[in-house]
Amino acid sequence: MFVLGIDPGLSRCGYGCVEQRGAAQRAVAAGVVTTDRELRLPERLATLRRDLHELVAEHAPDVVVVERVFFQTNVRTAMSVAQASGVALLTASEAGCAVAEYSANEVKLAVTGYGAATKAQVQRMVAALLGLREVPRPPDAADALALALCHLAATRTTRAKPALAGGAR
Amino acid sequence: MFVLGIDPGLSRCGYGCVEQRGAAQRAVAAGVVTTDRELRLPERLATLRRDLHELVAEHAPDVVVVERVFFQTNVRTAMSVAQASGVALLTASEAGCAVAEYSANEVKLAVTGYGAATKAQVQRMVAALLGLREVPRPPDAADALALALCHLAATRTTRAKPALAGGAR
Repeated sequence: MFVLGIDPGLSRCGYGCVEQRGAAQRAVAAGVVTTDRELRLPERLATLRRDLHELVAEHAPDVVVVERVFFQTNVRTAMSVAQASGVALLTASEAGCAVAEYSANEVKLAVTGYGAATKAQVQRMVAALLGLREVPRPPDAADALALALCHLAATRTTRAKPALAGGAR
Repeated sequence: MFVLGIDPGLSRCGYGCVEQRGAAQRAVAAGVVTTDRELRLPERLATLRRDLHELVAEHAPDVVVVERVFFQTNVRTAMSVAQASGVALLTASEAGCAVAEYSANEVKLAVTGYGAATKAQVQRMVAALLGLREVPRPPDAADALALALCHLAATRTTRAKPALAGGAR
């Protein structure tokens, strides 16, 4: 199973693709899609969609995982992050991928076992879980890999439940 | 010149197309695009894009005008409105249309001459300016027509400036 994590952003949008085969997880790709700050907002959103569409076409993920956005103090950033997340969600849907969303806290909890973990702790766990010698850079790429790992962890938990609860959900 | 106004929203997205020919302005179309609340967010955004794409293809506007979104008290609505506005902006850009954004206050000021006008006042002015017997319904459609009228008013003002200022901007 291939899972593509997307950490939405207009200036910098992180992505990370993880393959799960049996119990083994490996990072297939990770990086950042950027849009030119000189361009106007509509063109930047169209560029983002084109680049994300290419990523999805290249990696053909079974699931695309997008960070669920909440409003922080920086209203201007929150707007563009929300718009970028919308572009990521619709691009995944149009490509026929399953889509999952998790909050930053859910990702922290799934990856480190601690919902208030620091970004650095999450990034070190991402490297450890994926057997990488170094923490993936830039941080947006590591965050995207963490989203993919969070989904894989959540899927394992969900799969384990029916045996206890007596039925598939 | 055809101007398509879009009042972004996920559940209800208003649209209104105004043609300006000389000094005459007429409403070409107005209505609302809706998405099924039963669908998941990615599918709703993809549906919205498909419907807006069809609208743009049908009316071939010179300019698409989208309301610039700010964060209100309802954070949950603000998220989906921001995502819907992103979809509208990228759809217009992909179709090769010029895109303009105005805040709700700019629209009120342009249409009624008063930035703190009520929604009802704006809607009555929309009907008056477009020579409609009744206020366009639903309100989202009237708001979208107001966006289109706001852009036409702003364009007139901009056009008038160079004669005074001695040059085109």
